Amino acid sequence: MGENDDSDIIEHHVEEEMEKKGARSYAASSSFLESVSPSEREGHSSTQSSHRLLAYSDALISIIATVMILPVAHTKVEDNEELRESLQGLLTTKIGVYLMTFLIVTVAWAAHIRLFQVVVRIDDCLALLNLACMMLITFLPYTFSLMATFPENILGILLFCGCVMVIGVIQSVIVLYAFSRPFLLNEQIQISENQTFYKHHILKVIMKVPIMCFFASIFSFIFFQLSYVLLAIVIFLPYISQCLKWCRSKAIGQVEETPDSMLFYTYLPNEPLSKERVEAFSDGVYAIVATLLILDICEDNVPDPTVVQKQFGGSLTAALRVYGPEYLAYFGSFATVGLLWFVHHSLFLHVTKATRFMGLLNTFSLAFVGGLPLAYQLTHEFPPNSHNELEAIQISCVIIFFAGIFQLAIWVVALYSEQETLHPYVRYGGREHVLMLAKLALYPCIALGTFFLTCILSKFSAPIFHLMEITVPFAFLVLRILVRLGLALLRLLFCPDRPDRRIVIEEEADETRVPFNALVT
Amino acid sequence: MGENDDSDIIEHHVEEEMEKKGARSYAASSSFLESVSPSEREGHSSTQSSHRLLAYSDALISIIATVMILPVAHTKVEDNEELRESLQGLLTTKIGVYLMTFLIVTVAWAAHIRLFQVVVRIDDCLALLNLACMMLITFLPYTFSLMATFPENILGILLFCGCVMVIGVIQSVIVLYAFSRPFLLNEQIQISENQTFYKHHILKVIMKVPIMCFFASIFSFIFFQLSYVLLAIVIFLPYISQCLKWCRSKAIGQVEETPDSMLFYTYLPNEPLSKERVEAFSDGVYAIVATLLILDICEDNVPDPTVVQKQFGGSLTAALRVYGPEYLAYFGSFATVGLLWFVHHSLFLHVTKATRFMGLLNTFSLAFVGGLPLAYQLTHEFPPNSHNELEAIQISCVIIFFAGIFQLAIWVVALYSEQETLHPYVRYGGREHVLMLAKLALYPCIALGTFFLTCILSKFSAPIFHLMEITVPFAFLVLRILVRLGLALLRLLFCPDRPDRRIVIEEEADETRVPFNALVT
Repeated sequence: MGENDDSDIIEHHVEEEMEKKGARSYAASSSFLESVSPSEREGHSSTQSSHRLLAYSDALISIIATVMILPVAHTKVEDNEELRESLQGLLTTKIGVYLMTFLIVTVAWAAHIRLFQVVVRIDDCLALLNLACMMLITFLPYTFSLMATFPENILGILLFCGCVMVIGVIQSVIVLYAFSRPFLLNEQIQISENQTFYKHHILKVIMKVPIMCFFASIFSFIFFQLSYVLLAIVIFLPYISQCLKWCRSKAIGQVEETPDSMLFYTYLPNEPLSKERVEAFSDGVYAIVATLLILDICEDNVPDPTVVQKQFGGSLTAALRVYGPEYLAYFGSFATVGLLWFVHHSLFLHVTKATRFMGLLNTFSLAFVGGLPLAYQLTHEFPPNSHNELEAIQISCVIIFFAGIFQLAIWVVALYSEQETLHPYVRYGGREHVLMLAKLALYPCIALGTFFLTCILSKFSAPIFHLMEITVPFAFLVLRILVRLGLALLRLLFCPDRPDRRIVIEEEADETRVPFNALVT
Repeated sequence: MGENDDSDIIEHHVEEEMEKKGARSYAASSSFLESVSPSEREGHSSTQSSHRLLAYSDALISIIATVMILPVAHTKVEDNEELRESLQGLLTTKIGVYLMTFLIVTVAWAAHIRLFQVVVRIDDCLALLNLACMMLITFLPYTFSLMATFPENILGILLFCGCVMVIGVIQSVIVLYAFSRPFLLNEQIQISENQTFYKHHILKVIMKVPIMCFFASIFSFIFFQLSYVLLAIVIFLPYISQCLKWCRSKAIGQVEETPDSMLFYTYLPNEPLSKERVEAFSDGVYAIVATLLILDICEDNVPDPTVVQKQFGGSLTAALRVYGPEYLAYFGSFATVGLLWFVHHSLFLHVTKATRFMGLLNTFSLAFVGGLPLAYQLTHEFPPNSHNELEAIQISCVIIFFAGIFQLAIWVVALYSEQETLHPYVRYGGREHVLMLAKLALYPCIALGTFFLTCILSKFSAPIFHLMEITVPFAFLVLRILVRLGLALLRLLFCPDRPDRRIVIEEEADETRVPFNALVT
């Protein structure tokens, strides 16, 4: 996109300080005006910390990102049909729509993060503009599902492009408004002399997407296939080209310019991403996914009194027993999603700086988490010991495996630049390094184990799966002890003669035992 | 309940400081271990800030609180039937269940806040226990809706009591665990010498509810009406008795003991409530309610390609035109909920301390907000100019009015003890006082005006309602200017000879223009 050339100019070697200030003003929701200089404080009583606005936006976007799983979840799979066939039908349309929507919404979310890393304070006007922007973002999944259902009808493209264009215009208005009131801006831009340059650069990046969409909507009247190509380019190319560039530079061994450089509006994989917002967005997705099944249960599984009287002779217990599998699916999916959240929480507690690439991996992990309730629901919809049941259980294992493995990937990526991104405790040789590895590896390992066990002992697939569901929470409870035992066992097996290495490790770890706040503040 | 006597003993006259510390450690999510003293920091590397755990819990609870609106929203109102009749049918069961569930879940949420105001740091074990607790809380709405559908069947009572008892046991385990590791506790308790007393007091309050539920479940076998009475007592009586006590003391003019007293586990209306958690919970509810309609649209309103081919001659535009009213309802409800969130956000930006009574009013406001999408959906389901349409519009106005008026009530209550609870800007005579009043009064006034206009000009009810929807966002945009104009006009009308009072007010305001952070830190 030739964009890297522009953005390379916008570098600051004071990123660490900036990040801290950003994080502090973000966290200190109750002390607005904090980082406005005293002279300005008097004049602009109406400026506010953007913390809560962003939290609300994150909540909205996380709901919208997961919403397209509902049409998938509510597709009834017939008993007499083979699961494989019906799943192929699903896969081609609804699951595809879900994954694409998830990706598009997270792209919009990333743009929103980028914007509000520049505009760090808001006033009433910006809050209202942001709400308008949110309203259009929440409409995107619908336009996208129209596009997917009627690929040859241009109405879907037009609606989608229309939404994106209006979002672009609103974001530009936000930027122009914020630059006309510099006290709303990031402190780094506020004190810079190049404000006009920043403004033009940011506007150029923001307007690129709406302009491409404008052309796409015009081309849709002439040759609609071209529109899809344009849309694909606009969404994916910046990321792909930048990732390739980054990988190449890593492979050749070319040294990065400066690890501490602050880049506004680039698509580099190591561009910093607000950790708070990644957490807030993930929390939203996990919370909605965890409760997806109870929503259905509350709505559909309260039997009608007349039905209970007629069909079950007035016995509510008998009537509810029919729903047994659904309750089991609910508790199973809630526990799994809850524990995946717990792993995510443990990981991000030790992440000091999130990068765009880590955000991308997090998105993939969340996209799989979104499919979990569906998979769990499938496991209980088929007669015991049927071929369908086995496949449903294996699909659940695959989904859990990928959700877990992408979480592990976040940590692995973070380890590559551990000095910047990780707390000393979980770096190589840190005192919690092995525990963190165990936490992150537990679900992928167990999912893989269950998958192969059900392949071999296909007769007992359901009991194996349920046993897995029940043991995993307890495994997490005693994980710390298990890890210690495992380490002791390894020592005993491989080097029984050497002195107890744990003491050495602990001493090494002592050096890295820097208090957390000393690192952040 | 005779509880006040116990809890009055547990008072601290250092609450202001405590609050600050609590707020800071809560907000500083990235700096765990911050407020642990250095000597302790070494020993307990596994303790974590509870910030994100609480945010996730808030997200889960807010989803669960609003979930019972779905059965209400999905009840189809027949066109030929009178709205009044069908609504009466709805009102007696589903709306009742929704409101009661909302109340019960918020009671559970308040208990959760209370618990984690005592336990301010967590470790892995507490995080997992909390997740188990959350799983049971999310199951409460279902048991409650069983109770409502089958009031004479004891299964609902047993399930509900069972859940509540297990929640109580888990909370007790959390308290015992935290007291066995005092570095997890609130600093005030940590340094206190009466730890055992605190522990017993808190356990006594927590276990009261499960024990009552235990009796309720036993009585259900003998005389089930008594169980309901017991449950009602356990949920409402503490609040009612304390409110009455508080009102009486206010009415008689008896001076409160000390306004700055810190009270753990009391039900006094002025007991402090974590402002961050009230905001997080409200954000969750507003976000879900705002997107409720788009969930339905995404799932139901993508027409089938074959239907489009057959019924509309392949014209997607014609097929989508049928759904027009639904889109309108979505945008209308999103805008209204978004603006109500905006008002809430503006209000809580200037609230320095939230109390239990303000939390209760907030709950009422949120319960009405939850009904908004339903009301908006109704406005478009009937033929134009029908009696049903008029009633649906009037119901929408009533719901908006109550949602707004309870927000205003929060501010009025806060004004009663403005020194503690409000930022100087919005106190009597503060520079933003009138603007805040205008913001909070705008929706109730407009809803009331629309209501009476539709009563008089019933022919034009739909245009009036849509005009209202369109003008309100712009009214919020220019509200600051409108307020200035209004004040100038008032001055001109009532005291044209006096000197410009605005200058006097501004000068007065200058005294109260304390920087926000000076007040909080």
